[in-house]
Amino acid sequence: MRRGRLERLVRSMGELGLDQALITDDRNLSYYTGTEEESMERLRVLLVDLRGNCRYYANALFAPLGAGAETVRHRDGEEGRALEDLARRLTPGGVLAVDQTWPSGYLLDLLALAPNHIFRSAGRLLSLPMVCKDGEEMELMRRSSQINDRVVEELISSISESSTEAGLSRSIHGLYSKHGAEGAQGGALVAFGKNCASPHPQSREVRPKAGDCILIDAGAPYRRYQSDMTRTVFFRDVSPEMERVYRTVLEANLAGIAAVRPGRTAREIDGVCRGVIEKSGYGPFFTHRTGHGIGLQLHEEPYLSETSDTVLREGMIFSIEPGIYLPQTGGVRVEDLVAVTANGAEVLNHLPKELRVIP
Amino acid sequence: MRRGRLERLVRSMGELGLDQALITDDRNLSYYTGTEEESMERLRVLLVDLRGNCRYYANALFAPLGAGAETVRHRDGEEGRALEDLARRLTPGGVLAVDQTWPSGYLLDLLALAPNHIFRSAGRLLSLPMVCKDGEEMELMRRSSQINDRVVEELISSISESSTEAGLSRSIHGLYSKHGAEGAQGGALVAFGKNCASPHPQSREVRPKAGDCILIDAGAPYRRYQSDMTRTVFFRDVSPEMERVYRTVLEANLAGIAAVRPGRTAREIDGVCRGVIEKSGYGPFFTHRTGHGIGLQLHEEPYLSETSDTVLREGMIFSIEPGIYLPQTGGVRVEDLVAVTANGAEVLNHLPKELRVIP
Repeated sequence: MRRGRLERLVRSMGELGLDQALITDDRNLSYYTGTEEESMERLRVLLVDLRGNCRYYANALFAPLGAGAETVRHRDGEEGRALEDLARRLTPGGVLAVDQTWPSGYLLDLLALAPNHIFRSAGRLLSLPMVCKDGEEMELMRRSSQINDRVVEELISSISESSTEAGLSRSIHGLYSKHGAEGAQGGALVAFGKNCASPHPQSREVRPKAGDCILIDAGAPYRRYQSDMTRTVFFRDVSPEMERVYRTVLEANLAGIAAVRPGRTAREIDGVCRGVIEKSGYGPFFTHRTGHGIGLQLHEEPYLSETSDTVLREGMIFSIEPGIYLPQTGGVRVEDLVAVTANGAEVLNHLPKELRVIP
Repeated sequence: MRRGRLERLVRSMGELGLDQALITDDRNLSYYTGTEEESMERLRVLLVDLRGNCRYYANALFAPLGAGAETVRHRDGEEGRALEDLARRLTPGGVLAVDQTWPSGYLLDLLALAPNHIFRSAGRLLSLPMVCKDGEEMELMRRSSQINDRVVEELISSISESSTEAGLSRSIHGLYSKHGAEGAQGGALVAFGKNCASPHPQSREVRPKAGDCILIDAGAPYRRYQSDMTRTVFFRDVSPEMERVYRTVLEANLAGIAAVRPGRTAREIDGVCRGVIEKSGYGPFFTHRTGHGIGLQLHEEPYLSETSDTVLREGMIFSIEPGIYLPQTGGVRVEDLVAVTANGAEVLNHLPKELRVIP
């Protein structure tokens, strides 16, 4: 059990008028309890109350929690019994915050068992303490991104006319393993030419043509802490239009990073990046938010979108990844991870961002 | 859109007294619409009514559905607006079946927007049509397991005194890619000696010792259809006790397979395997259910547990994977995928199961 983290959670619960919280997400359970299990479809939840009492319902396949929590185990097929016990432990008339990724099937069963209780989405409650990384976490995030720098540089250096999107994407697992990350859990989205114009393309068995943009969006966890970086390079040649697109995206990335400091809102940073791209006339082709928080989860709070009023605080880590996607032509994205410092930002990636044309 | 599949779903909805269903899980969306997106935390749901009308709410990053569904797109941060539209489309006073893996955060928002509607967990509704594979799916499942046979054989053949659990586990990605599966999405759990005694061990950088059992639980998708197989072999030597454990588990595996035929229940098959192990005195060390359904999902209906009353039907595919785990000593599991045929079972794996000692 990570007592300090649980105590901060309990304080937040009190401030929000919550009586109990149900932690169910593997990453959140990992953060608050130190466990490293993958629940898949099996039931594994931690009920926490305002006094910090913890009751852990877990399939017998998972290890019990040690001191500081009562573990209630059940076997495959006995989930209903576990939920009945859980329903009996809910504070009568109280408010329960439910982890936002808990599968609806379990929640609807619990709602039927406890019709008079008040259920709220935990929303950011559980992830908010995780949003500001402590010193130990910051070191792991730096190390994870250092590995990512080396892996992506090695991948880019390996590109030749016989490379394929899918082949490069496959080979990155070995590079992550070689450099000390969890290769099997990492991955790369690799796209050439007009396939880059979809923000979520599939990697295919195609080779690059002269003038193609090559987009590489890659990351892997190091000791469970995620990395994530995108670089776009060009093969043999770059057209004047794509060069202009590249310079615009890079300017947006740099302006966004320069705008980061405690007290600003996530929406303001999104607006800075979006403003650069809109001024260049490419506004309609920047089709997604500017970034996402990252830590134990690849995507977590805070999200840097046009509607997010989250105030930036020291220790937050998120991506800044503006992009321009021209259908039938190509796409450019430049993504770095950025940590909010006491008076600005620390960029966790160090792979150069100057326009790069592979000879 | 896969019209035939949707029509079967709509018929089931009518029989169960449901007015609408909300499909949200990536695998279920893939099955009913043919899409191959990964939603992660983004909103992407399909609302289906009793007339087969489909309304698809999707983040603008995802491709719209073609003919047969109206696509309602939203941008990052506009999920609330999408859920408001969805709430307005719910049949007044009607019953909505919600996909069981939909994140609770979205469901609780929708419950607040539609307080007078009746929400039910879709439970098996959405996955039930997927449980009985059609001819096209059966072929893909056979092919996926054929690849798995070759990969696991090649992995076992590569084991030497310098192998490590983690090294073997890493190397399997390359083998899956080489044999035509989606290597990056596959994986292997590899454990030596007493580490096999945990049904969910972590692979470490340790080498095998003479007499160690070596457990390999591996699978990867082929054209999105999953494979899954476990073999346990021995390194250099096998103790009399572990040989007895092995023969008991193999007998349970074979008895379970022999018991499969349409009309029997999942619980009966679990009972047959469990009976063999109990008779041998190892009952308390068989700590999990006998198997799980498999298809587009690695784990799906039907589950073969002591409490499952699912009746087996032709076209169902599931694992039969009895195991015995002796703490501080070792563990043995033998897992095959089995399809229910008109009058028995077809085993999809063909890798031999005789006791194997690596010289």
